[in-house]
Amino acid sequence: MIIVMKMGASQGEIQKVVQRVESLGFRTHLSQGEERTIIGIIGDERPLDRDSLGRMRGVERIVPILRPFKLASRDFQPADTVFQLNGHSIGGQKIIVMAGPCAVESREQIIETAHMVKEAGAHLLRGGAFKPRTSPYSFQGLGEEGLRYLAEAREATGLAVITEVMAPEQVSLVAQYADVLQIGTRNMQNYALLHAVGESGMPVLLKRGMMSTIEELLMSAEYILSHGNRRIMLCERGIRTFETYTRNTLDINAVPSLKELTHLPIVVDPSHATGKWHLVSAVSKAAVAAGADGLIIEVHPNPELAMSDGAQSLRPPRFAELMAQLRPIAQAVGRTL
Amino acid sequence: MIIVMKMGASQGEIQKVVQRVESLGFRTHLSQGEERTIIGIIGDERPLDRDSLGRMRGVERIVPILRPFKLASRDFQPADTVFQLNGHSIGGQKIIVMAGPCAVESREQIIETAHMVKEAGAHLLRGGAFKPRTSPYSFQGLGEEGLRYLAEAREATGLAVITEVMAPEQVSLVAQYADVLQIGTRNMQNYALLHAVGESGMPVLLKRGMMSTIEELLMSAEYILSHGNRRIMLCERGIRTFETYTRNTLDINAVPSLKELTHLPIVVDPSHATGKWHLVSAVSKAAVAAGADGLIIEVHPNPELAMSDGAQSLRPPRFAELMAQLRPIAQAVGRTL
Amino acid sequence: MIIVMKMGASQGEIQKVVQRVESLGFRTHLSQGEERTIIGIIGDERPLDRDSLGRMRGVERIVPILRPFKLASRDFQPADTVFQLNGHSIGGQKIIVMAGPCAVESREQIIETAHMVKEAGAHLLRGGAFKPRTSPYSFQGLGEEGLRYLAEAREATGLAVITEVMAPEQVSLVAQYADVLQIGTRNMQNYALLHAVGESGMPVLLKRGMMSTIEELLMSAEYILSHGNRRIMLCERGIRTFETYTRNTLDINAVPSLKELTHLPIVVDPSHATGKWHLVSAVSKAAVAAGADGLIIEVHPNPELAMSDGAQSLRPPRFAELMAQLRPIAQAVGRTL
Amino acid sequence: MIIVMKMGASQGEIQKVVQRVESLGFRTHLSQGEERTIIGIIGDERPLDRDSLGRMRGVERIVPILRPFKLASRDFQPADTVFQLNGHSIGGQKIIVMAGPCAVESREQIIETAHMVKEAGAHLLRGGAFKPRTSPYSFQGLGEEGLRYLAEAREATGLAVITEVMAPEQVSLVAQYADVLQIGTRNMQNYALLHAVGESGMPVLLKRGMMSTIEELLMSAEYILSHGNRRIMLCERGIRTFETYTRNTLDINAVPSLKELTHLPIVVDPSHATGKWHLVSAVSKAAVAAGADGLIIEVHPNPELAMSDGAQSLRPPRFAELMAQLRPIAQAVGRTL
Repeated sequence: MIIVMKMGASQGEIQKVVQRVESLGFRTHLSQGEERTIIGIIGDERPLDRDSLGRMRGVERIVPILRPFKLASRDFQPADTVFQLNGHSIGGQKIIVMAGPCAVESREQIIETAHMVKEAGAHLLRGGAFKPRTSPYSFQGLGEEGLRYLAEAREATGLAVITEVMAPEQVSLVAQYADVLQIGTRNMQNYALLHAVGESGMPVLLKRGMMSTIEELLMSAEYILSHGNRRIMLCERGIRTFETYTRNTLDINAVPSLKELTHLPIVVDPSHATGKWHLVSAVSKAAVAAGADGLIIEVHPNPELAMSDGAQSLRPPRFAELMAQLRPIAQAVGRTL
Repeated sequence: MIIVMKMGASQGEIQKVVQRVESLGFRTHLSQGEERTIIGIIGDERPLDRDSLGRMRGVERIVPILRPFKLASRDFQPADTVFQLNGHSIGGQKIIVMAGPCAVESREQIIETAHMVKEAGAHLLRGGAFKPRTSPYSFQGLGEEGLRYLAEAREATGLAVITEVMAPEQVSLVAQYADVLQIGTRNMQNYALLHAVGESGMPVLLKRGMMSTIEELLMSAEYILSHGNRRIMLCERGIRTFETYTRNTLDINAVPSLKELTHLPIVVDPSHATGKWHLVSAVSKAAVAAGADGLIIEVHPNPELAMSDGAQSLRPPRFAELMAQLRPIAQAVGRTL
Repeated sequence: MIIVMKMGASQGEIQKVVQRVESLGFRTHLSQGEERTIIGIIGDERPLDRDSLGRMRGVERIVPILRPFKLASRDFQPADTVFQLNGHSIGGQKIIVMAGPCAVESREQIIETAHMVKEAGAHLLRGGAFKPRTSPYSFQGLGEEGLRYLAEAREATGLAVITEVMAPEQVSLVAQYADVLQIGTRNMQNYALLHAVGESGMPVLLKRGMMSTIEELLMSAEYILSHGNRRIMLCERGIRTFETYTRNTLDINAVPSLKELTHLPIVVDPSHATGKWHLVSAVSKAAVAAGADGLIIEVHPNPELAMSDGAQSLRPPRFAELMAQLRPIAQAVGRTL
Repeated sequence: MIIVMKMGASQGEIQKVVQRVESLGFRTHLSQGEERTIIGIIGDERPLDRDSLGRMRGVERIVPILRPFKLASRDFQPADTVFQLNGHSIGGQKIIVMAGPCAVESREQIIETAHMVKEAGAHLLRGGAFKPRTSPYSFQGLGEEGLRYLAEAREATGLAVITEVMAPEQVSLVAQYADVLQIGTRNMQNYALLHAVGESGMPVLLKRGMMSTIEELLMSAEYILSHGNRRIMLCERGIRTFETYTRNTLDINAVPSLKELTHLPIVVDPSHATGKWHLVSAVSKAAVAAGADGLIIEVHPNPELAMSDGAQSLRPPRFAELMAQLRPIAQAVGRTL
C-alpha cells in the first residue's frame, strides 16, 4: 500500500501517519518527491482498512498495491483448478456445456429437454426450481417439486444437474437433489449465502453480479474458498451498461482477464449476456474462441410458451446445430467439446 | 402491451399471435401501419410474460405500456405514505435525519456517538451490527453483541435505532433490538430477505441496488408491500457509473422521479453516494433541496480509527455544523428539520 | 509515478526499468516489499508515457501520483477564477442563470423568449444556431441566420448571448455574434475545436462529455487554458448511465468535486441532465444547494411546438416561478441570484 | 410511433393530440385500453419530433416504433455491402486485417513495421499522423510529415493505408495520402467531420464512440450515407463501463447485433477494446468467431519505446503468431483470412 500525502503536508502530519502504520505492525518507507511525499507500507496490506488511514490529516490518497484476493489468485496457485464431476473434468482440456430451460415448468418439460440436450452433446442439465424474479407477480418456480423433477431427469439421462440456490436455508435441500449449486447474479454478494455454500462443500457455479467488477467476483469466490470449498466455477453472464439493444453486455475481455488472474474455471452464459436467442450462437462461438472452459445455455422445447426467459432460449434443433458449430472452434483453440 | 410485428410478417403469423394473446384472456386491437402491424393488448398486462410472446414468429418487439409495479405507484395511491416512528412522522413535512457510525465497534463508541448525534438534532441512530463486506478478511461486525449496544444507546438517548439485516434467518433477532430494518444495496434483490422483512411488519429502509434502476427499486418495494408491510422508506445511495473520482454517483434525478412515481418516503445516503466526507455536506444540501424526506449520514467520533468507511464519515462537530446549514435549505423548500 | 514490479521480477528487469526512467531525466527511488518491488519516479511525471513503461519486462502496473492537469488545478491556482461578462461577475458570489430555447427557430421566438427570461431574472440568453443532432433528418439549426436573431435579441434586451460552436472553421463567425462560445457534450474531446476556441480568447462554456470523467473534463479545459484562454466555465450536464427513466444522470457529486479540484466556475444544466421539464426545478435547486456557480436552463414559449428538446423545456411562467424558488436557496448557501 | 396517454387523460386532451398529429400529415389510430388510451401514428415517423409531442397535455410517453436510421438498415438494403480496396473485397468472405503502430513516429519505424505486418499477412497498414490525445502535453503526431511516411510505406510494401482524420479542414490533405479515412471514437458525433468525410467519397472506417449506443453508431453512419458515400466500415472498439481492469469493454454482442441491423461491414479493434497486449489474441479470436469482417490491431516493433499506446501494442512476432491462430478460427466459421 502506498500513502500519497498532500502537497504541503507538514512533517508532523507525515510522522503521525508513519507512527499509526507502524503501530499496526507494518514497516514503512518514506519517499520525498518534488511535489509530494509518499509513504510505502511493507507487509501484507490486505487486513488494513484504507478508508481510515485515508482520513488522517495531510493524506491525499491511498493506493493499494496487492490484489485483495489471495486463495483465488494465480500468484497463490499457478496451476489451473481441475475437478471431476460425473465423469467430466471441469477446468481441463474439454469444454463443458450445461443446457436446459430457465425454469423447470413440469416433469415432462424437463425430462424431454434433458434427453434432447444430452443427445446434442451437453454435459450437464440446467433448470431453475427456485427463481429470482424482478416482479412478485411473475412465476417464482416450482420449488422442491422442481428439484424432484430435475433428479428424475438426471436418473433418466445420466446428466448431472445444476440449479440455483437463493437463500442459506435452501442449501441443504437443494444439495440433496443437485450436483452443482448455482449462485445467481443478484446474489453474488449475498455473503450469508456464500458462507452457506462454502460450508456445503458442493461444487458451485458463481455468477458475476451484473454490475460487479472482475475483482469483486474474485472476492466473492474468496469467501467460498476461505470456507474450504475449492470446487468453484466462475461465470461471466453479461454486465449492465448504457447499451439497451441487448439485455446485458457480454464482457468478453473478462474471459482472458480471469484466466490470467485466477486458477478457477471460467464459464460463459451467452443467453443472459444477450437476452436474444438469435445472438446466442455468435457469442457462444466467441466465448469458446476467447478461452472459456464452459458454457451455460438456455434451451427450451417451446420458447414461445416458456414461463420465463423465452426470448433468449434456443429450441433443441438450433442448440444441436450450435454444438456442431462449436466443435471446430474448440479444436482451433486446442480444446475438445 | 404493444406487440410490434416485423416488416413483412404474414397474416398467418399475425393471427397466431392474436390467438395466443386471446387464449390468455386478453382482448386485442390490430393496427396496420405502412411498414409494420401493431397488436395492442387490452387488460392488465402485468402477469404476461413478454419474453415468450417475443419469441413467436413474426414478432419484432414487445413494448410494455403499464409500469410493472402497482402497490408502490402513485396511480394506485395518490397520497404520500406517512407513518409514525418514535414520535416522528416519516414522509411528512419534517425531514428525518438518521446518523451514526458505519459499524458498531464497541459499547462506548456507539453510546458516545448516539449522544453526539442526538445533540446535533438527529432523529434516529444508525449503526451496523451485521456488516456486508467485499472481503472475507475485513471486519464483519459484532453481530448480536452490536445489537445489544444499539439497544443500550437507544435507552440512553431515546433515539430510535436503524440497523441492517442481511439474511432471512436474522430478521427475528434484529427485530428484537431495532426500530427500523435496513436492507442494504447488495440485498435489494435478495427476494428471500424481502419476503422475510415483508412478513415481519417492521418499518423498513430499502436501499437501491448500486446497479439497479428506479423501476427495479420499486419492484423490490412491491415485494415487501405485497406481504402487507407498508412502512417502507426508499433510499437512494448512489449508483455505479464509469466515474471513479467518487465511490458512487448520487442519482439526484431519482429524488424527484421517485416522488412522482411513488407515494413512499425517499431518503438519501450522501455518505455512500460520495465515499468522501468532504463531499457529504454539499450533496446533503442538494438532497434536501431536491425534495428528499430524509437523510442517513455516517458519523464517527474518530474516523481515522474507524473499522470501516472512515473516509466517508463525518466527525460530530462537522455533523452538527451540517445540521445547522440544512435548516435554512429545508425552510427554503417549505420543510422543517 | 510509481512502477509496481511483478512478484518475482528479476534484478536485471528492475535495473532495466530504473535505467530507462533515469535516461529520461528522472531520479528513482527503490522500495523492496515482501511480495513486490516498487520503483518511485521523482520529478514531474506528466510528460512520461506510462503505457510504454508498462510494457517493459517485469512491470505489473504503473500508478500515476500527480493529477495530469496543471493549469486547471487548485494546486496551481488556489483562488477562484472570476471574470466579468456584460456587467456580471462569473464565478463570484452571484449565481448566473442562462436561459433560452434549445434552438433558435425564428426571429420572433428568440426575441420573445429573451424578453421573458430577462424579466424573470436571467443573466444570459442561450439559443442554438448550429445544432448537433443525432439524426441527419432532424432540424440542424438556422446557422448564421440564427446568429443574427440572437444578436438582435441581445440588442433588444441587453442580455449577453451564449451559443454553441461545432467546428473550428465556425469559431470566427460565431465569435462575431456571441458573447460566450459553448462547446457541446459531443465535442468535449474535439481537440481541433478546443484549440480554435482557446486561440479565440472568447469566454467559453465547456460541457462535460456525457461519458467523460471529471478528470477528462479538466484535461479538455487544460487544452483551452494552454492556449492562453482563461475565461472558462465548466458545465455538468448529466452523464450516461444504465438508468433509462431520465435522459441522463446528473452527477451532483461533480459539483463539489470540481470546486475542490479546480478554480474554474461550475455551471449545471438541469435540462439535459434530466430530459424532463417536470424534474428541472428539483434538480436546479439541488445544483444551487450543492454549490454551482451558474445554471443553464432551456425555456421555450411553446414547448409542444419546439423543433427540438421540447420535453425538457420550461414555459416562461414556470421558469419565473423557479427563479423565485431559487433565491432563498441561494441565500441559504450564502449566495445571491 | 405510439403515444401513450396518461391514466385519466380527458377526451379534449386526446383530441388535441390527434389533431396536432394529423395536422402534420399523419393518420392516427385510437386504442382505448382499460387504464390508458393509446394513439398510433401511421406513416414514416422519422421526421417527427417526439419530444415536442411528449410535452402536450395528457401525454405520458412516446414510443417510437421504427428505427431512426434508414440507409444503413438491412430493411432498406438486405444484401451485405461489399466494396473493393486495393485488390481486397471488404465485407466479403475474406476477413481483412489492418495492422500497424498507434502513431507514426519516424520514417524507419513505419516502413519497418509495414514490412513486418505485410509478411505476417496483414492487408492494410494503420498508423496515426494526427493523434487525438487526452492531454495537451502528450505527443500529438507528426502531422503531414507522418502522412508522407505512410505513403512511402505503401509504396514500399503495396499495403493500402488507413489513418485518422480529426477535423473537416484536414480531410482533403489526408485524402491525398490515405486509402481509408478513419473517424476516431471521440469524433463519432462530430457532425461537421461526418459531413466532410461523406462528401469526400473516400472509404471510411467509423469507430463507435466509447459512450455511444449501437443505434447512435448507425445514425452517424447515416450522416455519411446521406452524403452519398457508401464505402463505410463500422468499428466496435470497446465501450466505457464500470469495469476498470481493462481500458474499455469490448461489446462482442455488438458484432452479431450490427450484422442483423445493417448491411455495412463490421471491424473490431481488440487493442483499444482491452488496452492490454496480452488480452489482444484472445479477443481477436472471439471477434472472428462472432462474425467480424475485419480486425484493426496495433503492432509496434518496440512497444516499450512507443510514443503512445505501447501497453496495447503487439510485437511483430506475436502478431504473426496471432495471424496463424486466427486462420483455423476463420475457417471454422466459413471465412478465410
